[in-house]
Formats: sequence, C-alpha cells, structure tokens
Amino acid sequence: MSALKFIALSGTTGVTQNLYLYEYENDLIIVDCGVGFPESDMYGVDLVIPDFTYLRENAGKIKAILISHGHEDHLGALPFLLKEIKAPIYSTRLVAGFIEEKFLDYGVRNMKVNVFDPERDVLTFGSFRVTPFRVSHSVPDGVGFAIDTPEGRVFHIADYKFDWTPVDGRPFDVGKVSALASEEVLAVASDCIGATTPGYTESEREIEGKIEEIAAHAKRQIFLTTISSNISRMQQALNVAGRAGRKAVFIGRSIERKAEIARTLGYLHYPRELMTNPKQARKLPVDGLMYIISGSYGQPGSALYRLALKEHDFLSLQEGDVVIFSSDPAPPGSKANVDFVVDKLIEANADVHYYDMQEDLHVSGHGSQKDIEMLFALLKPKYFIPIGGTIRHMRAYSLIAQKMGAKAGDVFELTPGQVVEFRGKSAKIAGKIPVKDVLVDGLGIGDVGNVVLRDRQTLAKDGIAIVLLTLDRIQGKLTSDPEVISRGFVYEGKNKRLLTVSGSLLSKELARKPKLDAKIARDATIEFLERYFFESTGRRPMILPVVVEV
Amino acid sequence: MSALKFIALSGTTGVTQNLYLYEYENDLIIVDCGVGFPESDMYGVDLVIPDFTYLRENAGKIKAILISHGHEDHLGALPFLLKEIKAPIYSTRLVAGFIEEKFLDYGVRNMKVNVFDPERDVLTFGSFRVTPFRVSHSVPDGVGFAIDTPEGRVFHIADYKFDWTPVDGRPFDVGKVSALASEEVLAVASDCIGATTPGYTESEREIEGKIEEIAAHAKRQIFLTTISSNISRMQQALNVAGRAGRKAVFIGRSIERKAEIARTLGYLHYPRELMTNPKQARKLPVDGLMYIISGSYGQPGSALYRLALKEHDFLSLQEGDVVIFSSDPAPPGSKANVDFVVDKLIEANADVHYYDMQEDLHVSGHGSQKDIEMLFALLKPKYFIPIGGTIRHMRAYSLIAQKMGAKAGDVFELTPGQVVEFRGKSAKIAGKIPVKDVLVDGLGIGDVGNVVLRDRQTLAKDGIAIVLLTLDRIQGKLTSDPEVISRGFVYEGKNKRLLTVSGSLLSKELARKPKLDAKIARDATIEFLERYFFESTGRRPMILPVVVEV
Repeated sequence: MSALKFIALSGTTGVTQNLYLYEYENDLIIVDCGVGFPESDMYGVDLVIPDFTYLRENAGKIKAILISHGHEDHLGALPFLLKEIKAPIYSTRLVAGFIEEKFLDYGVRNMKVNVFDPERDVLTFGSFRVTPFRVSHSVPDGVGFAIDTPEGRVFHIADYKFDWTPVDGRPFDVGKVSALASEEVLAVASDCIGATTPGYTESEREIEGKIEEIAAHAKRQIFLTTISSNISRMQQALNVAGRAGRKAVFIGRSIERKAEIARTLGYLHYPRELMTNPKQARKLPVDGLMYIISGSYGQPGSALYRLALKEHDFLSLQEGDVVIFSSDPAPPGSKANVDFVVDKLIEANADVHYYDMQEDLHVSGHGSQKDIEMLFALLKPKYFIPIGGTIRHMRAYSLIAQKMGAKAGDVFELTPGQVVEFRGKSAKIAGKIPVKDVLVDGLGIGDVGNVVLRDRQTLAKDGIAIVLLTLDRIQGKLTSDPEVISRGFVYEGKNKRLLTVSGSLLSKELARKPKLDAKIARDATIEFLERYFFESTGRRPMILPVVVEV
Repeated sequence: MSALKFIALSGTTGVTQNLYLYEYENDLIIVDCGVGFPESDMYGVDLVIPDFTYLRENAGKIKAILISHGHEDHLGALPFLLKEIKAPIYSTRLVAGFIEEKFLDYGVRNMKVNVFDPERDVLTFGSFRVTPFRVSHSVPDGVGFAIDTPEGRVFHIADYKFDWTPVDGRPFDVGKVSALASEEVLAVASDCIGATTPGYTESEREIEGKIEEIAAHAKRQIFLTTISSNISRMQQALNVAGRAGRKAVFIGRSIERKAEIARTLGYLHYPRELMTNPKQARKLPVDGLMYIISGSYGQPGSALYRLALKEHDFLSLQEGDVVIFSSDPAPPGSKANVDFVVDKLIEANADVHYYDMQEDLHVSGHGSQKDIEMLFALLKPKYFIPIGGTIRHMRAYSLIAQKMGAKAGDVFELTPGQVVEFRGKSAKIAGKIPVKDVLVDGLGIGDVGNVVLRDRQTLAKDGIAIVLLTLDRIQGKLTSDPEVISRGFVYEGKNKRLLTVSGSLLSKELARKPKLDAKIARDATIEFLERYFFESTGRRPMILPVVVEV
C-alpha cells in the first residue's frame, strides 16, 4: 500500500542546512537545499552541506526543487546538489535572482530557475500539487507551500513571522492560507526556532523610526551595516537617507550585488539621484552621507572591518562618525568578531550603535510563541513537524502544540534522516535514512571526515613532534640518535634542549629492544615519547615517527 | 617630586585577569591577581595570566596583595605570582578559604592569607592606609577599598552591585562609604562591565521565588546547577529544599569543596538533617530530593554533563526529572557546551529550565547603569578609572560620568600597562609599562607565544605534510622519490594517490636543479608543494621537509 513520506534529510536539529523531501511512489519533491556552518571544533571546514546519497539513489524520482526564500541555509547547497542530480528549480523572482547570482559564483551553467507567482500560480509535479503563498520574513519574497498529496494537504512553512506592516508592503497572505486551511489539514512542517521566545515577534517596520532618530542627531557621516540579503533594511536606510537629505552609497561586494539584483527585479525602490558613488561622496559635506556597508558580523576583511582598522582603500572614519549595526551577531563565533570591530570603532571615537545598547535596531525574522500559536490556530493540522531549529526548539514547539490540544505523539521531533510515513490519515515514524554531515574544505567535498578532523584537533591543541629514526635493517639497531622536530608543541628557540634530550633518551630506550624493525621502532617511539612529553610539559603532541631504513 | 601611580597591569580591556597597582615612592600595593581565559584561536592554552615582569623588577617595594572577592578572575593567578615574588595576602574570611583551597591544588605551601574584618579593620602599608568595606556581588564576602594615599583618597571597587536584600543579609555598606566619601575623593577605579546595561541590576533575592515555583510543581528529582563559587545560590536552593521537604545532595568536586569551605566558615547555613548522600538518596522517594550539581557551563566531564549523557557513575536521569540552570552561559565558548547538555537532557525527557526560557533564574552580579550613577553620586570623585570591562564598557562608563558632570579628560580609559600619575591633585597618563599576555599550557608558563600559536593555527586549519627527502650529498641528487606523509590535511585512505603523485612531481622538479643541498631541497620543496597542494585541494597545509643525507 502506498504512503506519503516526509523525510527530514537535514535541518531539524542544527537550524541550518534545511533540506526536506516529500515522496509518494515514484514522485519526489525537495523543499529547500541549504548550507550549514562549521562548529567551532571543525577546524578548517568552510561549509557543511547535507548528505545527498539518498537523492543520488532516487535521482529518477525527483520532480522539482522548491526554494522557500533567499537565505543561504535554504538555498546555499544548490550548486553542490546540482553536481549530483538534475532537476528543475522553482522559486519567487527575487529568490531566483539570488540563486542565479550564486550559480555565477560557482560556475554552474545552463541552469535557469523557474519563477512562480505566489499570488496565482499552482504547480503540479506528478502526485503533488503545490500552492505557494506569501509569508513575511527578514528577506522579501519568501513563501510557504500548501502541498496536496494523495494522503492529504500538508503545509510546509519555513522561516516566517506574522508581520502585518512589512517594509515591502506584502504581509503574510493570511487570507489565502485560511482558505487553503478550510479543507482538512493533514500536517504542518514549520519553523520552530522562535518556540522558546515569548510573545509575538515585532514588525520590521519598527526599526525605521529608530534609525531615523539616530540619523536626526548625526552631525557627520553615517555607516549602516546589515546582512546583504536584508533588502528591507536597506530600503529603510534609503528611506531615512532620502528624508534626511543625505546621499547614499553602497559599500562592499555582497551588499552592492544583492542591492543591484533587488533593484533590477523591483524589490528595492529609490530615486536615482539619492545614490552617489564613493568618488563623488568625497566632495559632499560629511553630514550629507549615508553609507550602507557590508560586514555586519564583523567578518575579517569585510568593508566595515577594514574601515574600523583604518585599512580601507578609499573610506576613512573620523571622530564623531556614526556607525549603526542593524543586525544581531548571529552565527557561531561572530560575536567575538563584532565585539572586536565595535571596540576598534570606539577607539576611533565613532558613535557606535550596536547590539549591547538595546536600541531595537534589529528584530528577529522568526515567529515567536504567539506567532506559532496563531499559525496552529489557522491551520488546525492533525500532525506537526518542527523544522529549522534544534532539539530544544522542537520540544518547546511540541509543548505549544500540546497546549493547543495536540497529543505528544502527534508531533514529530525528527533527527536528520528520519522518515514520517502518512498512510490512511495516520502518521508514524518509519525508519531513518543514514545521513552524515558533508564537510566542504577548499575544493574538497566530503573528504574531510572524522579522521582528518581528529588529527586537526590534536594538532591544534598540542602540535606535533616528528621523529626521524635511521634504522640499520640488518643489525636491527639505530645508526644514530633520533632527530626530533616539532611544530606547535614547544617554542624550539627556548626548548631545543627538551627535544635533543628526548632524542637521546629515546635512543637508550630503543637500544634495549633485542632487534628493531620499522614497526617495533615506531610503536616504541610513540609509547615512550607520549609519556616523556606529557611528564615534562603536561602536553600531548601528536608523535609521528618516520623510519629510514639503511 | 613624588607622585601616586595607578597602574592597570591588566584587566581593563579583557574583563578578566584583574591586576592593579598603587605605587608611591618605595611602596607598592597590588589589588587582585586574576586569571583570564584563552580566546577561541589560542589553541591548547589552558589559562592566561598577567605579565609579572614589572612586579619582579619591583619586588622589594611590594607591601601587600589585597583580594577583593572570591572569583577566579580576581584571585586565580596568585599561585603563579607567588612563584615570582613573596608578599603578604589580605582578604576577607571566605575569600581566604577559597585562596587556601587553590594553594592546596597548586602545591603552594607555607602561605597563610591574612584575614581582615571589613566592619572594623584598617590596614596600613607604608604610605597607604586601606579601609575595606562590604559590597554586594554574586559571591559573598566581597569588599571595596578606600585607599588613603599621600595624594588623596582613592576608592577601588571591583565587581559590585547595590543589592539591598542579598541572600547573606549583608548589603553594600553604603553608610560606611558615604562617611568615607565625606572627605574629598581623588579618584574611583570601579567595575564598568554593566555600563552598557540600562537600569538597576536586580537583587539576588528575586531568584529564590522562581526556584520555589518550579520546585512546587516538580513531581520527581530536582537537579539545580550553578557555578561553584555562587554560595548564595546554593543557600537559596537549600532554603527551597528545606521548605519543600526535600533532602539535598551536593554533587561534583568543585561544588562539594566550595560548599564545605563556606559552611565551615559560616557562610552557608542549613540544618545537618537537610543533607543526605548519594547512597542514602537512592532509598528516598524521587520527589524528596534536590541535587545541587556542578557543570552549569556544560563543561565536558562535569557531573551534569555525565548525567545528561547517561555516563554518571551513580546518578541517573529519569523522564520527568527537573533540571534548573541557575547561571548564565558566560565564558567564551560555553554557550555551545550548555546547548549540547540542554539538548541531551531534553532528549532524555527531563523538564529543563535554562537561559532560553527567560524565567529569571539568574541575575548579574554587576551593577548596571543606574548602580554606576549611584556610586558616582555617592563618591563624587574628581577622576574616574573604569576597570573589569572592555573598550566598549569603558566608553559607556565614561559617558555616564560625563552625563553627571565629569569632563571626558577626567576619565581614564586605560589599556593594559598604562600608568595614571596623580600629583598635586591633578592626574595624567604617564607612560605605559610593556606587558604581554602570558599563556599557561600544561606545565609551561609563558613558553607558548606567537610562533607556537601561529603553527597551531596553521596545523588546525589545514594540517601538515611531511616530506622525507633522501639526498646523495656528493651527487647532489635525490636517491629516490620523496615520501609524503600527511596528518589533518586529506584523508589518506582516499587520497593516497594525491600524495604519491605529489612525491613524483616534486622529484621531477628537484631533478631540474643543477646540484641539490639540504637547504635548496627544503626551500624548493616548500615552494613547489604549497602551490601544488593549493591548486589541487584549495588547502594550505604546513609543508615540513625532512632531509636525510647519505
């Protein structure tokens, strides 16, 4: 008997790397295909992407890839997926613009994104009929999907909040959702990351007044930074600049490119004469400028970072300049970078408005507890699947559903790879597809795994000691004292003696063995030096014996 | 002409590592001597301690070391300092207990701490007369100092807040401070880390009700975790346990030891029969127990960590058990650890109360903006020195002082080593003592510096490739293809070929040189392989050629 399968290939326990599958007989559709970011102990790793094994094995079934909105953790892994399978991509216009820009970066050719209109289009893919609808989030043009399946209607709503006054004037399409929900709703898979935050999430609109207030008091240049996908925030900054009689300048490649895409596609509006360029800007009075600059996470090398460190090619920061961070320091590790940049800006006597000041210069893009309750009240689904959060967010989401009458068993808190099977209006966990995180490091995709990472962790902590052993194969003896070279272990300038002594002691130790061969010499070296170095330094460097047989 | 020098040897820009000097002619007193914690890129470093060079050079002048309160960042570097200089230490009774416990750990012998009573003692050290007074903070028995110097009275107030209802019933001694401030106050050096937080900091007292509420609904065992120095929080947990008819158990070495010290010295009060031990606890009903357990920062290996991972020797977590985190995830990197432990606890279906739930289960120990204003209003100092924060906190503190009438030049935002000189009632910056962070790694103090750290960072990011070159010295040729071994670079199982090929290509490259010696071979190897590996993998491992001459 056939069944609908919902597969959380990844994205339920780590916030990012969103990738969900709907499968029915020979039809499979993918919703979102995002990247993740390395944990702090994944040294050297650039990106984490989902495991595409299952998709490769079922490539023939894949009818469509739907993308919900323009954030990296929902679309960033597309170039990697498209190396493995071919399938048509569907999104709204702005999201398509962002995806095609990404394809340029990765050299993906001949892939056009199919643009749908969430006001009127309905898409059919084999057994699935998909009706998109507008949601509000911190990037414009996001959508949710009502997915009609042979087992019933499922709502898939990735990152969203209920913002009735969004900057782009297009709020969550609650009317359409109500109409779609008037038929029985089998299940909802929706964003859970706000489930631990009380109340409703504030509207993006609130921020514009705060920026305006700061601009009103500014007597010099203003630098406003936000993440490059936050087109609405850019729009607000441009609105403020216009009213304040300031000219605006985009600074930084990511901001410039995203703004250009948004403007061309009609998502960012401003009169031509509002903008100027850095060269013209020099001729304008310092109280007549607003820069919209990239680097809101304090990324080393970003435009704002270089400005703060007085390393920027053509911009310079003066005493009394105003810097506005209009974003949270969100990704792991970024708080330290933001703090560093803020400190440098303050040292240069800029007037800095940042997260610590609690001036409400940023609001979350994710619905909080009350938004989640409202969604559940609208949809009245039979089953619930929290996505886009972590274990603690899934549990908090489940408690909200239970408070509203669901049974604990109606909520599926999935770990990556887990499958929910819907059959005859009832749902159950039906196994788990084996998946692992795939690490991208430089040009390598998936070749860095536990072995390499464990080595990097050992090397990072205590470095390495390389031991050169010259072995007379026939005699079974060393021909000379082992030579010990280290990196990242001790400062050789000061500790040369430690290494020399370790070589002679090791030599004596090895001389006790009746007859050495390469393996015996290696094992004994590791055993002896691990103990010796730990006793004399308290450290455990990696010991790497290299045997030369003569 | 003589002058009073205030030297921020460390502690003004990095929150921790507090160490300040007051120097007048041949007298020098030290206030606090704390450790710091490694930044995230200081791989393998256990602790950071201040640079004691200046103290070593002026050892003869040091009359006393005063410790303000019982936190690591104010006393943890004492064992290291005492290796370099001898001087008497002064503190309150509980702080002395904590210091002497630390001395036991570090094997420091024959050092007794001199205990003063902040209600009545006045201490004289050469030109300095020091009057301690009680302050409130998140650990009991903290004090500030009024330091009378030949140039005037200076107040040194490390971590504090104004808590009128502290758990130990001994609030900030505002009466004594007012009296002391009735004479002219030359300067204040005080905690600035709350300077970016609006309002007043709440009283510790508020928390007890929140814990009680949770306990009232708990139907099973309760585990409450806090940092081991937070004696007041332990007291509150014990109060709640007593009223709820639960027996209490301390779990974890740090909690047990600190609690024992506090009880013995009269800072923790409970009836003997309230406590039980883990063995007896097994025989009690599950709703009759409260564990006070260490591991509030999610430290790997801590009691709570092992409980969450079901690896604890004698404790086990059951569905419905209640876990209360009564502390913020504060130190760098600890948030990820706390999140990991919280997720494990939730997976085990415990009812977890942690930072995300915003239930006010922790309050800061540091005064906020209004506390700082109150202190300034009390003292009316001529000069201001923010301590214990960072650049952004110093600036916010300075803005508070300026709002209250100070000139910007009256506030000294010091970087480590900077000296303020007071002479004839006026103050100015008078140079800077060169200081650096001293890193502790295992048994080594200060031997890990930039060279070793840079190597560790390179090794962490892309690993290492060791190249064994066997060189015929007379011919100036290699006798065979170089052997390339790697660790943390690529997975050798899959990439054996990359390494073998790199060896043969290198061999060809080196064959082009007219005559090889060890240096030429090494340099050419590094140049060739750096490029080759980057082009083929996008990575930059450390290249380490080892030349064997035959």
